Parts: sequence; structure tokens; C-alpha cells
Amino acid sequence: MSNTPDSVVRTYTEQHRTAFLDDLAAWLRIPSVSAQPEHDEDVRRSAEWLSAKLSGTGFPVTEIWETPGAPAVFAEWPSDDPEAPVVLVYGHHDVQPAAREDGWSTDPFEPVIRDGRMYGRGAADDKGQVFFHTLGVRAHLAATGRSAPAVHLKLLVEGEEESGSPHFRALAEERAGRLAADVVIVSDTGMWDENTPTVCTGMRGLAECEIELHGPAQDVHSGSFGGAVPNPATALARLVAALHDPDGRVAVPGFYDGVTELTETERALFAELPFDEATWLRTAASQATAGEAGYSTLERVWARPTAEVNGIGGGYQGAGSKTVIPASALVKLSFRLVAGQDPAHVQEAVRAWAEARIPAGVRHRITFSPATRPCLTPLDHPALQAVARAMGRAFGTKILFTREGGSGPAADLQDVLGAPVLFLGISVPSDGWHGPDEKVELDLLLKGVETTAHLWGELATALR
Amino acid sequence: MSNTPDSVVRTYTEQHRTAFLDDLAAWLRIPSVSAQPEHDEDVRRSAEWLSAKLSGTGFPVTEIWETPGAPAVFAEWPSDDPEAPVVLVYGHHDVQPAAREDGWSTDPFEPVIRDGRMYGRGAADDKGQVFFHTLGVRAHLAATGRSAPAVHLKLLVEGEEESGSPHFRALAEERAGRLAADVVIVSDTGMWDENTPTVCTGMRGLAECEIELHGPAQDVHSGSFGGAVPNPATALARLVAALHDPDGRVAVPGFYDGVTELTETERALFAELPFDEATWLRTAASQATAGEAGYSTLERVWARPTAEVNGIGGGYQGAGSKTVIPASALVKLSFRLVAGQDPAHVQEAVRAWAEARIPAGVRHRITFSPATRPCLTPLDHPALQAVARAMGRAFGTKILFTREGGSGPAADLQDVLGAPVLFLGISVPSDGWHGPDEKVELDLLLKGVETTAHLWGELATALR
Repeated sequence: MSNTPDSVVRTYTEQHRTAFLDDLAAWLRIPSVSAQPEHDEDVRRSAEWLSAKLSGTGFPVTEIWETPGAPAVFAEWPSDDPEAPVVLVYGHHDVQPAAREDGWSTDPFEPVIRDGRMYGRGAADDKGQVFFHTLGVRAHLAATGRSAPAVHLKLLVEGEEESGSPHFRALAEERAGRLAADVVIVSDTGMWDENTPTVCTGMRGLAECEIELHGPAQDVHSGSFGGAVPNPATALARLVAALHDPDGRVAVPGFYDGVTELTETERALFAELPFDEATWLRTAASQATAGEAGYSTLERVWARPTAEVNGIGGGYQGAGSKTVIPASALVKLSFRLVAGQDPAHVQEAVRAWAEARIPAGVRHRITFSPATRPCLTPLDHPALQAVARAMGRAFGTKILFTREGGSGPAADLQDVLGAPVLFLGISVPSDGWHGPDEKVELDLLLKGVETTAHLWGELATALR
Repeated sequence: MSNTPDSVVRTYTEQHRTAFLDDLAAWLRIPSVSAQPEHDEDVRRSAEWLSAKLSGTGFPVTEIWETPGAPAVFAEWPSDDPEAPVVLVYGHHDVQPAAREDGWSTDPFEPVIRDGRMYGRGAADDKGQVFFHTLGVRAHLAATGRSAPAVHLKLLVEGEEESGSPHFRALAEERAGRLAADVVIVSDTGMWDENTPTVCTGMRGLAECEIELHGPAQDVHSGSFGGAVPNPATALARLVAALHDPDGRVAVPGFYDGVTELTETERALFAELPFDEATWLRTAASQATAGEAGYSTLERVWARPTAEVNGIGGGYQGAGSKTVIPASALVKLSFRLVAGQDPAHVQEAVRAWAEARIPAGVRHRITFSPATRPCLTPLDHPALQAVARAMGRAFGTKILFTREGGSGPAADLQDVLGAPVLFLGISVPSDGWHGPDEKVELDLLLKGVETTAHLWGELATALR
């Protein structure tokens, strides 16, 4: 193999593999479980460990950013090119809870390498994916002979992602000046599978709503009053039943306003993915697919907005029977949103739709939780193409495109910074996020190193 | 006043008033709460007290009938006319729980007379109404000069009515020979109000059903899978929403098969009742009426079958939100039935209707509880006219007709004995059944004595 930049990166990565894995294992040993107060000090230790490691990597600026909860780590490495674009990498250093008795084969906080995989809580979500950036930037310098990256590089690694990022948006707003970037790279997702490297182009947004209907002042006897007063549980069921039309479309007027429709190009690329319905149904623990007519399963979960009941309740739910007309009933709805939809507009539409359908004699309370915006980077965006090229160089194969059906704090960065969000996730579904025996495939982890080693040059060129 | 039978009855009743009330008070002092095991012995004491009292009244046969739960009291007084019709009176000697701290002004088991009312648990429901039969039959003999009643009189006073009569049907079936009667008189209901004496002509039946729908094998993430798998809570809501048509009629095919429609005569008599919607809504704790188009509120609760949700539940119902597609959802439905409807047919119809509407990929479980039949005695039935005449003689005013919207064990007697069931209830809505400060109006209680004093002669004539 000639001494091309790609082969230099590969060789550099191989040479530093052992030390890199030893370092990652050391980080995984810190049980930075943000959801468990007894690990508060471990989360802080994790932040300090990462900050020191980033200094050692060469970042001239590393800071611990306090929040009312767990601390985040910020690092910055200015480019030697003053015209270089600014790139902000997002990840998190906290992890999900884990205990041996949850079904782990080994101690979740004592990482082991077995069959080419490193097992340990956080190996994939998200320490492994944050960590490949450290060796990646060194490989980038080694391959290009530069003394500083081709982009102005910033890292923000938060400590509360597994607890719902309660202070993340406030942190981003407060530090917006320091975080300002031309593009955000989120390293906290995954790719299709081991053999199908993909780039995620967006996540759905989320609007959540609770509707409570009140009928009689207290539960009343269904013999004495049944058939002659409004039943709030029935009224609620009618509301929920009216959420969708017979084609599975959300029937709330105005709900689809502004929706960015899938392009034929993106549909064609989705269709190239090796989707197997039986496998997907197993993952979904479901017996059948369902949903909006005219769309494939992947299109439904990635690119179409939805309305789902997350919970419903009212009246007597215990054993046996109790012949009452319930005093009240409640439904928790969540709406996944796609690019082009405005959460505030959706909330207003849902409220108007619901209020118009509540029968006489039934009082209501409709409350919305803070919404999460959708985010989407168009396929032809130069930064997205740069990510795909960097990944293609590392994997040596065609890169396809996915989206995520879920919603995440990345959208806050898009919102606050006004920058497009790209997803560079080098993890696979079998990595077991949040479950026992979480692992990372070492080969893929090193592809992550290589991808980021190529990425800064690709982005510098693409965004010039 | 001349020495007519009616005046003899009135005089006899007045003469025995004090002893009668003292006796009732003694019975009310026995806290025969069938729902509370610590009162098991009190329930037995109550049965023994009543049995002894009935012997003292003159019933030649009095027996304690054991059940797997609380004992019932049976008494029999053969007529001196061998051709006389056989009448079975039904009541119960157990009472609802009661404690001073529930809001009673005085000890619930230490009866007091205040402002022409006797306060105490069971005063109206149902000891008072059982007890007026004791003085009533003596007044009947005194007024007619007979040594035995004009009808062959049987009394069955159960001890588990306030606990749902779990052994009543089995008892009735086992003792069907002893209980055999031409007509059943139930003294466990009420009349319209203090100024409007009424006879109840029927009760609705009851079929209860639980429908459980299962979607994913466990709750799954609504971001990853929302919009692409069936949601059992949504499916359940659609089922419930389809229960009624836009006119408020139950939309289950076959549900109305056999329904005995209201006659114009009965509608006209219902319309004579001094119904006040505002007052009724207060009782119903509701802000509006609702229901089947084309029927008044009283017609809806008394004479029309219904489908009501008693409880619904599925997914996350706690505080905040949890973005899941629930694994399952459940609804408890109850159907009130009217004369002519067959509970088994309704159950089959509901099952077929539900099963036809469950979407692919959703499994279901539908279970029915034992049903209660409706009962109705036509207005022109001679026994019903006899009850109305007896009541009219006691009250000196026109007797109107009502029904009960609820369901009760009386239907079991209709079923098992094949005899029409009539309701002689001399209690008013303000008597506070099941609540604190339960009371009986002494004037009405004595009208009950007079009514039963007239009833046996009226029935003997009517059924000859």
C-alpha cells in the first residue's frame, strides 16, 4: 500500500490501538451513572478524567462546565487556518445504570475484551464514540502533517444525557458564544449494521400532551345514572379514536402544515438498506406492522410524523368489576414531528382539535410538556456529503443514509446555535445500549477513529 | 271516621306504633355489617333476632337458612284459604358499614328519633322495610278478623345483600321448592319522594365484560417504533368509540334484539312524575345530561339499555411522561339490559362485534362476568295493580310508577321461581342509603305498615 493519507491514517490508528483501548477501558471503569445520586462523584471524576485526556491529546483549551446537575466537558482546538470552518462535536460522558445482576456476563464497570469486542457500560453509548475523536484528531494531524486541525474544533461532552439532559438547553444558551459553530457533529447514534455503514440525517421532534376529561364530580353508579350523563372515559376514547383517519394519517387539522416530504432520492436510498421485516418486527416485539398508508416501515418511523397513545386511564382498573361512571379519564399522547413542523403550531392544532370535540358537560385540562424540535440535514448539504466521504474512505464501501425515529438534545444545538446537525454514529444495533453486556466492536471503533481522521479535512474543503 | 277496614288498619297501626318502633330500634342496634368479618357474629345475631321476632308476630314457620356466608331468615304463614295465592317477600337483614367518624351525627348503631325520623344504619336499607311487614300482617288480621293471612305468605330475608349476594342465587336454587310463589314482593327499593308515592315496576339487567388488547410483547419506544406498529391503547379507544352511534344508541349489532319498548301509557305516567333536571343533575354529580336520542332522562336510566365504560387503562399513567407504545390496554364495560334482552345473546353479540374490530397484530382476551337478568312487570299485571291499590289506600293519593336503573338479586328470584317480581319500596331518596345519618321517615314507615296490611287482601282478590 502506498503512503496515501488513508494508509497513513490506518497505520497510525493501528500503531496506537493498544494504548487507545487501554485508555478507553480506564474511562469505562468510572461508573458515571447520572441517574443515581450515589454516583454523582463518579460523574464528576469522569468529566475530570476526560478533560485531562483531551489536554493530553493536544486540545489547548479544556474546561469543566458546571450545571445545576452534572458537569459537562468543553474542549477547543483552533485551526491553524484562520478561515477554517468551526465544528462542534457533541457527545456525553454519563452512562445508563448497570449491575451484574441485570444479566451482565462480567462486571459492567470492569471492561473486558472478548472476541474482538470490548464489553462494559458506556462502551458504545457514548464513551466509545466520544473517545474515537481523541485518536482521530491525532491521526488527522499525523496524516496531514499539520500542527493543528483543518477545522476549528470544539467538543461538548455533557454529563446528563442519560437523565434526559435537564440542564442542557440552558447550558447551550448560556454558552452560545463559546459553542458557536458552522456545523454540529453528533456522535451518539448508530449505523444500520456491521456490514452497512450509514449516516443518519435527522431525528424526529417530539410534542407531548396530556388530556384529562372530567365528568361527574365523583364516580357515580352506572345503574342509577348510566345512559343519561356523559361518561368521560367514553368521551376520551372517542377523542383518541378520532386522532387518525382510516389511512392512518393524523386527523388533527393543520398537523401536517409545513412537513418536509421525503424526496424520491432519499426514498430510493432508504430502499437500498437491507431491511428485513421479520427481523424488524422482532426488535419491535410486535406481530404486525401498521401505520400511514403509502409509506414503508422505515419511512414511517424515520420520516413521517405520528400520534401515539403512551398511556390511558380512568375509572376502575382493579380486579373484578365496579359499576361506575368514572369521574375522570386521562390520556398521555406523544406526537413525533418531522422537519418543517413547528412544535408550537402542532400544540395549538392539537388543543383546538381536542377542545372542539369535547362534549357538553365534560370539563377538560390539556397540558403540553416542553417540546423537542425535529432536525434534518438535506442529503445534498455539503457537510453531510463530507461526512459520507470521510466514512466511505474509512469503510471502503458505499455509505447509505438513515434517520432516527427518536428525539434528542441535538435539536437544541441546532436551535440555539442555528447550525445544521450531522450525525456520525459508529455503533450497531447489537451493541446493547441501555441493556446488559453493552459492547463495542473494536474494528468499528477504529473505523470511527479513521472516519474522524478524514472528516476534518473533508469538512474544511466542503465548507470553504 | 267510620269503622272501615282502612280506618281499622290505621288505628291498629297507631296503637302499636311505640312498641313497633322500640322493636325496630332494638334490631338496628345489632351491627349486622356483612362486609366486615368482625361483624360475622352480629349478622348471625341479627338473623336470630329476626327469626324470633317473626315467630312472635305469629309466623308458624321460621327458619335460619345457612349459606357458605351469612345466614338468611325464612318464615312462612300459610293462609287459612287453601286456594290463596302464594306470595314471597324479599328483603335483607345485613347493613352497610357505618362509623361515627364517617359523618354521623349520632352513633349509627344507637338509633335515635329526631324530628319524626329514626336515624340509624339500616333504618331504611333494609331493616325498616322488612320490619313494616311484621306489624302489617298483624294489622291485616285485625282489620279482616282472620286468623291467618289472605295469601300464603313467605318471607326470605338474606344476610349478604350489601356484599353482593354471592350465595343468593345458589340458595334460591337449592330451596326453590320451599320458595315457590305466584308472585315475589321485593321490599328493598324506594319511591319517588315524600309527596309522590310510586311503585317500581322493574330493574335493568347487567352484563359485564372486560376486553384486554395486547400489542408489543413489552412496552416499546415510541420514537423507534411509533407510527409503524399497532398501538393496543389506540385500538381499544377505537373499539370504545364504536360502541355508540351518533344518536347515542349502542352500535353493537343485535344488541337491541327483543327489547321491550316503552308503552305510551308508561311514558305518560313517567312524564307525570315531578322530575326536575337541575335536581337530578345534582344527584348525578353531573353538569349535563346525555344519552340516546328520543328518550327523556328517566326513560334513559330506567327503560333503555346502555353500554358504559367503568374503567379503562393501559401504558404509562404516572406523573410526567414516558414515550412508549404500551404492551396492552384494558377496558371494563358494563351493559345495562332491559326486559326482553337475553344476557347470553348480548354477550355473544358484544364478543362478535369486538372481535370483528380488532386490528391485525393485536391479540385480545374478552371475559364476561355472570350476568343479571332484567325484570319488568307490565303495568296491567293484576298483582302490580293490587300493589298500587294497597299503596293508594294507605297514602290516599294517586300512585305513579317508576323503574330502577340498577340491577339486583331480585332478578334471580324471577329466574329461579318463574314468578313475576313486584317492588314495594317505602323509602325516599333523602333517606341516605349507604351514607351517614341514614334515617327513615316514621310517617312513611307506618304507611308501609298500612300498605302491607292492605296488600294481602288486594293480592288474594287480584290473583284469584
